[in-house]
Amino acid sequence: MEHTYAVIMAGGGGTRLWPVSRKERPKQLLPLLGQDTLFQSTVARLENLLPPEQILVVTVEEQAREMRLQAPQIPAENYIIEPAPRGTASVVGLAAAVLHKRDANATMAILPSDHFIRNRDLFHYLLKAAFEVAANGYLVTLGITPTSPSTAYGYIQQGEPLNGAYKYPTYKVGSFKEKPDEEAARQLLRTGDHSWNSGMFIWRADTILGEIEKQMPALDVALKKIVSAWGTDQQDAILNEYWKPLKIETVDYGIMENAERVAVLPAGGLGWSDVGMWSSMFEVLLPDMNGNIATNNSLHLAHETHNTLVYSGNSERLVVTIGVDNMVIVDTGDVVMICKSDQAQKVKDVVEHLKKHRQEKYL
Amino acid sequence: MEHTYAVIMAGGGGTRLWPVSRKERPKQLLPLLGQDTLFQSTVARLENLLPPEQILVVTVEEQAREMRLQAPQIPAENYIIEPAPRGTASVVGLAAAVLHKRDANATMAILPSDHFIRNRDLFHYLLKAAFEVAANGYLVTLGITPTSPSTAYGYIQQGEPLNGAYKYPTYKVGSFKEKPDEEAARQLLRTGDHSWNSGMFIWRADTILGEIEKQMPALDVALKKIVSAWGTDQQDAILNEYWKPLKIETVDYGIMENAERVAVLPAGGLGWSDVGMWSSMFEVLLPDMNGNIATNNSLHLAHETHNTLVYSGNSERLVVTIGVDNMVIVDTGDVVMICKSDQAQKVKDVVEHLKKHRQEKYL
Repeated sequence: MEHTYAVIMAGGGGTRLWPVSRKERPKQLLPLLGQDTLFQSTVARLENLLPPEQILVVTVEEQAREMRLQAPQIPAENYIIEPAPRGTASVVGLAAAVLHKRDANATMAILPSDHFIRNRDLFHYLLKAAFEVAANGYLVTLGITPTSPSTAYGYIQQGEPLNGAYKYPTYKVGSFKEKPDEEAARQLLRTGDHSWNSGMFIWRADTILGEIEKQMPALDVALKKIVSAWGTDQQDAILNEYWKPLKIETVDYGIMENAERVAVLPAGGLGWSDVGMWSSMFEVLLPDMNGNIATNNSLHLAHETHNTLVYSGNSERLVVTIGVDNMVIVDTGDVVMICKSDQAQKVKDVVEHLKKHRQEKYL
Repeated sequence: MEHTYAVIMAGGGGTRLWPVSRKERPKQLLPLLGQDTLFQSTVARLENLLPPEQILVVTVEEQAREMRLQAPQIPAENYIIEPAPRGTASVVGLAAAVLHKRDANATMAILPSDHFIRNRDLFHYLLKAAFEVAANGYLVTLGITPTSPSTAYGYIQQGEPLNGAYKYPTYKVGSFKEKPDEEAARQLLRTGDHSWNSGMFIWRADTILGEIEKQMPALDVALKKIVSAWGTDQQDAILNEYWKPLKIETVDYGIMENAERVAVLPAGGLGWSDVGMWSSMFEVLLPDMNGNIATNNSLHLAHETHNTLVYSGNSERLVVTIGVDNMVIVDTGDVVMICKSDQAQKVKDVVEHLKKHRQEKYL
């Protein structure tokens, strides 16, 4: 796996996992699913595929210190600090430019830091397959075979099979579709040729830089300035100067939708979840015979309770449920949240409300 | 109101209001509905009707100290301490015997310590009316006009109107009925002549002592021994000796059901509640426009939430509810309980479970 790299993107927040995910301790830095944090699991998932020296992390200053503590095996120089959030297109561009300066033959996998993948072997197999496709100048994306008409993800339509002797079924991308409403999602599911957009991309550094040159000239100019100063004592000054004016743009809208050579590997059986909201826990953790999940069994007393998650953050309280169905209960030191499972996406509205009312201590 | 007395019964526990009601701090000693405890409210409800000297309290040793602190206006000698719980028949008998020794003309109202009554003026009016009826040698009970087919109360069937010029409609009791199941409760409601058994009784001390002599000879013997020693230095020794062997019996089964001269005053509009379980709070506290009740508004953030009670015991935590309907949420320092409102009676099952598993710290 020479010339191959993973770039872990870890800047965001994750307000839908409030009240556990907080501004100071965002989702990816929390041990949401066990002993390891989501970020640590993302790093660990690359073991036996890539050595730590070939793993880069792009994050913001406020999170970098904690990340270095959580994954000390990654060399310090592999942490790239965004001066300010400018969207995934800029993150991807910066990582590609820095990598390309280091290794002109670099191929990179862009991986979110806060996803869950159960089947690590299949994940490795898919990444290797994707690296092969990327070697031929494709922008490759891992699609996730949908298991429900989710409205939480964008969808990728697979087009013709890609010519070539690839080890995994690989398709040209027909089109990218924004997050649909539920009726549209049901229709997409019925077609059988749509995948969820997982946000995992694989490409050569020079391929993506070429696309940026074509499609995002302002970013291209900035990246060229930044990379010329990279590694010199001007690095931070130049990065700051050219980064701040950048327009916020995602890699999907800014690059993928209008690129020509785009391929998708539709992956079923990965056991993937973006752990995007509390109800995702039912995809990720094993429920008991009543469908209940308690992160600390000794702290949950369930009486006629079904399909309910009790998440005891850093709380020692006993949580008692009586006649409760299809709920998510999250107990932290200072907040108890009780939420109908199918309304878990509304947690972000509550966070907005708290922001608006300047309830800083809960954010 | 010479020769009239109130006897407040305050020995019990109230496990259905767990986790706020605990062994050490049972229901009646808690400020469940505001600043005053239920016991204090019961005492305050008698203001302008009876002076504190005419109020007696029967309780157990473990609660007496706190009660004296909560109602210091009641003279110390008016507290009667049960050596051990022996049911309401024994309590009533002891209070009657002690009162009768003090005042051979005593008429007494037996009042539970842990009920809520909104309409104090009507309550006074009813008690005065009941004292008149009791003067004629009746065992009088206050019935509550049912507002739902509750299965939580016994029912009293009203018979013929009582002859005599009474200030309030007064009936002979046709029969006492045990707590019905829901179908039976619906039928009782339809008859229009059944009241809930409120546990409030009014009678002359000599009338009830006469009934005890007739119906409960063992209790009668014990009471005569106890009262002969009452006020002497043998009081506690004799009380203990004769109390402990008593059979546990309620006043309803032990006396009322087989007594001859029994009357009921069916009371509508009292705004009565026995605050018997968490869902009773909806009868007692004023909900907001969404039907929600929060005992501390600043600690409840309600998002698409209806008909839900958030009771913050001695907790400072923010309780957030999203998409929650018809629930009771009780947050204390060490327990969070989430319960479907219509299953609030099952809280006692949870307390039983905790007892069985020796989780003393939560009891």
